[in-house]
Amino acid sequence: MIYFDCDYAEGAHPKILERLMETNDEQTQTYGEDGHCAKAAELIKHCCVSPSAAVHFFTGGTQANLTVIGALLRPYQGVIASVWGHIGEHETGAIEATGHKVLTVANDDGKITAAQIDELCRAHKDDPSHEHIVQPGMVYISHPTEYGTLYTKPELEAIRRVCDIWELPLYMDGARMGYGIAAAAQNLAAGERLMLPDIAVLCDVFYVGGTKVGAMFGEAVVITCDEFKKDFRYYIKQRGGLLAKGRMLGIQFEVLFEGGHYDETLYNKISDHAILMAGLIRKACVDKGYGFLCETYANQVFPILPEHVIAELREKYVFLTWAAAGEINGERHYAVRLCTSWATKEENVAALTEDIATIT
Amino acid sequence: MIYFDCDYAEGAHPKILERLMETNDEQTQTYGEDGHCAKAAELIKHCCVSPSAAVHFFTGGTQANLTVIGALLRPYQGVIASVWGHIGEHETGAIEATGHKVLTVANDDGKITAAQIDELCRAHKDDPSHEHIVQPGMVYISHPTEYGTLYTKPELEAIRRVCDIWELPLYMDGARMGYGIAAAAQNLAAGERLMLPDIAVLCDVFYVGGTKVGAMFGEAVVITCDEFKKDFRYYIKQRGGLLAKGRMLGIQFEVLFEGGHYDETLYNKISDHAILMAGLIRKACVDKGYGFLCETYANQVFPILPEHVIAELREKYVFLTWAAAGEINGERHYAVRLCTSWATKEENVAALTEDIATIT
Amino acid sequence: MIYFDCDYAEGAHPKILERLMETNDEQTQTYGEDGHCAKAAELIKHCCVSPSAAVHFFTGGTQANLTVIGALLRPYQGVIASVWGHIGEHETGAIEATGHKVLTVANDDGKITAAQIDELCRAHKDDPSHEHIVQPGMVYISHPTEYGTLYTKPELEAIRRVCDIWELPLYMDGARMGYGIAAAAQNLAAGERLMLPDIAVLCDVFYVGGTKVGAMFGEAVVITCDEFKKDFRYYIKQRGGLLAKGRMLGIQFEVLFEGGHYDETLYNKISDHAILMAGLIRKACVDKGYGFLCETYANQVFPILPEHVIAELREKYVFLTWAAAGEINGERHYAVRLCTSWATKEENVAALTEDIATIT
Amino acid sequence: MIYFDCDYAEGAHPKILERLMETNDEQTQTYGEDGHCAKAAELIKHCCVSPSAAVHFFTGGTQANLTVIGALLRPYQGVIASVWGHIGEHETGAIEATGHKVLTVANDDGKITAAQIDELCRAHKDDPSHEHIVQPGMVYISHPTEYGTLYTKPELEAIRRVCDIWELPLYMDGARMGYGIAAAAQNLAAGERLMLPDIAVLCDVFYVGGTKVGAMFGEAVVITCDEFKKDFRYYIKQRGGLLAKGRMLGIQFEVLFEGGHYDETLYNKISDHAILMAGLIRKACVDKGYGFLCETYANQVFPILPEHVIAELREKYVFLTWAAAGEINGERHYAVRLCTSWATKEENVAALTEDIATIT
Repeated sequence: MIYFDCDYAEGAHPKILERLMETNDEQTQTYGEDGHCAKAAELIKHCCVSPSAAVHFFTGGTQANLTVIGALLRPYQGVIASVWGHIGEHETGAIEATGHKVLTVANDDGKITAAQIDELCRAHKDDPSHEHIVQPGMVYISHPTEYGTLYTKPELEAIRRVCDIWELPLYMDGARMGYGIAAAAQNLAAGERLMLPDIAVLCDVFYVGGTKVGAMFGEAVVITCDEFKKDFRYYIKQRGGLLAKGRMLGIQFEVLFEGGHYDETLYNKISDHAILMAGLIRKACVDKGYGFLCETYANQVFPILPEHVIAELREKYVFLTWAAAGEINGERHYAVRLCTSWATKEENVAALTEDIATIT
Repeated sequence: MIYFDCDYAEGAHPKILERLMETNDEQTQTYGEDGHCAKAAELIKHCCVSPSAAVHFFTGGTQANLTVIGALLRPYQGVIASVWGHIGEHETGAIEATGHKVLTVANDDGKITAAQIDELCRAHKDDPSHEHIVQPGMVYISHPTEYGTLYTKPELEAIRRVCDIWELPLYMDGARMGYGIAAAAQNLAAGERLMLPDIAVLCDVFYVGGTKVGAMFGEAVVITCDEFKKDFRYYIKQRGGLLAKGRMLGIQFEVLFEGGHYDETLYNKISDHAILMAGLIRKACVDKGYGFLCETYANQVFPILPEHVIAELREKYVFLTWAAAGEINGERHYAVRLCTSWATKEENVAALTEDIATIT
Repeated sequence: MIYFDCDYAEGAHPKILERLMETNDEQTQTYGEDGHCAKAAELIKHCCVSPSAAVHFFTGGTQANLTVIGALLRPYQGVIASVWGHIGEHETGAIEATGHKVLTVANDDGKITAAQIDELCRAHKDDPSHEHIVQPGMVYISHPTEYGTLYTKPELEAIRRVCDIWELPLYMDGARMGYGIAAAAQNLAAGERLMLPDIAVLCDVFYVGGTKVGAMFGEAVVITCDEFKKDFRYYIKQRGGLLAKGRMLGIQFEVLFEGGHYDETLYNKISDHAILMAGLIRKACVDKGYGFLCETYANQVFPILPEHVIAELREKYVFLTWAAAGEINGERHYAVRLCTSWATKEENVAALTEDIATIT
Repeated sequence: MIYFDCDYAEGAHPKILERLMETNDEQTQTYGEDGHCAKAAELIKHCCVSPSAAVHFFTGGTQANLTVIGALLRPYQGVIASVWGHIGEHETGAIEATGHKVLTVANDDGKITAAQIDELCRAHKDDPSHEHIVQPGMVYISHPTEYGTLYTKPELEAIRRVCDIWELPLYMDGARMGYGIAAAAQNLAAGERLMLPDIAVLCDVFYVGGTKVGAMFGEAVVITCDEFKKDFRYYIKQRGGLLAKGRMLGIQFEVLFEGGHYDETLYNKISDHAILMAGLIRKACVDKGYGFLCETYANQVFPILPEHVIAELREKYVFLTWAAAGEINGERHYAVRLCTSWATKEENVAALTEDIATIT
């Protein structure tokens, strides 16, 4: 079977394993206070053009999310998020377990808008019983979203302006950050693209995901807002997120972010590959006349396929059925998710696109 | 410099890295539902002679502790632990962050006794205001303890009996479990030794530590009590402990626990090595006439050394000063901690013991 | 001004104040272990025909809700509730502060259905990622609801059956319980009515509200399910809900529930009065041809009035505007809330109904 | 039986009940936004000479403590308190349930010192692993303490200075505040006495207890530090502490604090009475030659009595045995607690002192 079901089914990029081998005998400081973590943080800050940022490494996204959100909110505050937001839907109540409500905003594509945030805050403020209602305390967005969609630069700027008006910190979950940046670079106009330095300017905190982009595990949380830098390691330790051999995280991000300019990093190169692969799949679907659940450029493609095509594809490929999409010409159709990654092999994509073209 | 300051300064045992290389291209299920995790769980259960146990893998000890303790206690209950217990002293209030008090019991060597547990429970029950006082809800012990000391089998049996009387689950933090077992095997009589099957019989939950015993990271939580098996993965996910590429944990524990019998596992062999190395250091101190903070057999040695000897050793070696130990013959003495591990090199120990013998 | 804006604007029923006077010099046990609390508990259990129930007194509804829900759920579970449920909307995240998510179910009248509960549980169970999603752990309903609507006996029986299937405890928030029972008695057929003994049979835990039904403050939590009785006072104390002079609660509920049969209690008599008063207001609206936001029988009436009528009424009366209700004949209409209570004076209702009839 | 076992065994001061009667028909705003709460807050601020303070009313001390402490601490911080502190010992882990550790400091009389706070903070800061240890985040003291002892003005000033150095907010639990002030006024030199304005200057937050000083229930939290005033009502609501008919609290504190100058308030007059009564009991013990557990001036007296005297007193009086006090002349002695209050009758104290004098 060939897997297009997720972007973390394989191990790590071989260069990461090699470097782990090479550095294995070194004796280093523990809990992320070693030279590799320091170096990796410098490389990431360089790519973000954010020299005064603080960088902390986590083993996973849920842990990063619950630690950051728990750190930024006051006890009576909640976090604004899309109804499809990972924190609300797929983290077993991790945010609530830190004492906070997720305040959801509806949408069809995973993205929330500046206007929605503004409306929610205004409604709260104007409610005469507002002290009886959870106060909006920050904004969580994922980029790319759970639907593979991208925020454009103007959209994120608008969200930033609303956040400034309501004094809300803005946090971006970048589990698939590399894919989002590569997708924007390949598909969006220059003024629309969100590149790392834009994100660093517009967000108070964000994380650059490694687990889904070539690392064995690891997410790099970047804090640009001074207010939230203080004592952050206490939060990480309290939530169980301080890896004893922290160097394992540092080494991986060193490998991913070496190279001087972001374009030259391994992180960008493997992201670029995944986006090219996704583009081929998307094109095959377009050529065949299939529609899509929503317009995406990132590494997740959501074509709407007839039931019998899905069945035939399942004989060779593993992928997710995402949502029912009604009947067309008397046959049930479904949106499926086809996911590429740094590890996706060109021959597998060639096979898939060939099959999409030929199955009738 | 030569490091004797901790047992997690290096990477991982080379065989683990090799296996990660070999398996890197496999496409597996995620979140610990892959074949490697299943295999590793089987191997551990075999070594524990506990076929119906449930095994879950964590990336670190604090995370394992806060997840297990949060799962076992009712909201109004606290966990009984030594005043030196890692959960109370060195986890930044991780247990309190799950809503629970750590009920401490005093001692000089890291060990708590059955009598102390009994006394604490009795005092609570007999207090007419007991509903105003946190109810003892479980017992936490570490083995070896933070002082490198070991529970004997009769001691743990006595604790088990008291736990049964008061209906308290017993949880063992085995961050250095391998060293504890090897130390017992090398130093204690057969009837005194706690081996894995004994621990599996006497504890409701325990974890077999990997991070300090050859793994890159990883702790294997073993649940023997049926009551606590239900829905345990929900707890792990909620606390951010479910590693996306869970196979990374499975693969490591597979390597550590292959071999059929526990004695033949890599886990035991590298633990044995560390204990032999610690024994050489201990012997050098004894031969020189130095006393010890407490009698230990595990991989941490706490000799009491004169200030000038410590200063001279520091020129070549890195180690911790643990506690002031008063003045002897007009010179201040300190207990220091010398720590060996799976990675400790024989030539380094030879150098150290030589220096201990010759520095006057 | 005459107030129809809420049912807790006055002090307490005079008989309660008299009894507080009479008993003031008594020296009693504290924290609810006095004779008055014991007596009040007996009276309530008698009215519930539930001799083995446990009864605990709280000073307010939010406190009762957060204590009960925190006690019944496991950490990874959430509580199913209406989107309009008080716990989700108007308690400042009190449930989330205990670590739990509120799982909301949509509706237009404050009521949730057995089918909705079943669907939510089935969707959770069938989701392959269900361990990543908060598990439904109990059901919260309010009766009467926040919309003044009532569950019928067959509806609550259906909910109970679904709860049994999914092993969910059922908890009823009875902040306005007395009004709900009186409204059912006055308006519903015998087989439709939910009386106290029905509620005691069908719910695992519920509370009989005093604050809005004649008490100075106080809610009586009734636990009928044995499993949840254990150690409940620990929960109350931990959440700050154990009133030092607990007798203040006991005395009030004694006064409210004396009389042998529920029909003869002060609690029922003053509830009956409020429902009669609400009925007069409702009738005045019907006679005038006004519609309603939803069909209610309890002490809250939600007529839809033209803007100019609302403006004129506001000159003499205080009441809430609840929701915009569109334009009719070129004039904006709004649903307003008119609320009666034990303290509502007949002459005030007469004035209001007269004004409703005459304002054109 | 005559009760000297606690100071909240009776109802409320008759003037409070009278006022509740008089105001019962008023229709007021709810949740503490009524005129009585506003007036009571003004009266308390006047007595504190702290016009810009914020005052919030709670129904009980545990609720006040958990709300204030939860509001002041960051998640990774703990609260420094005496080992005998009510928050650590008698609130069923209420503080831990908000996620925070209680960092205890040892003593024999319920008081902690500036030096102890300083030492604890320094030890934390100097520990190389301080990020692994709960950070001291505020100081909790009770006044009078659980042992009935008093802080002097110089002692509290010293604590304030240390708090300023370490940037720790200082919170005083004044459950028995009135008795503490009266005891100081009757027994300490002017420069030693802590009066309300001193407390308002030296503490960031404190509460003036009503439950034990004449109220039916109620504690008035006074926030003098601007930083902690923001959004405080959100915290109260979230923790279940916002009484629906908040006026019940306002009215009580109005009655207690009317009169212009603190000396003229009912609160002070009834406190004075309790202290006079306690003084008579103390004198009777001194005259008889009995020692004391510690030197107290407040409304709790802890004489050390022979077992047979205790037995004889128990035939007429109810009081607590506090602690074993060893053997004297072959007979076991115990420290007992004799507690007076605003409600203590002079004839009962006369009987007790007579019996103390005559039992041999």
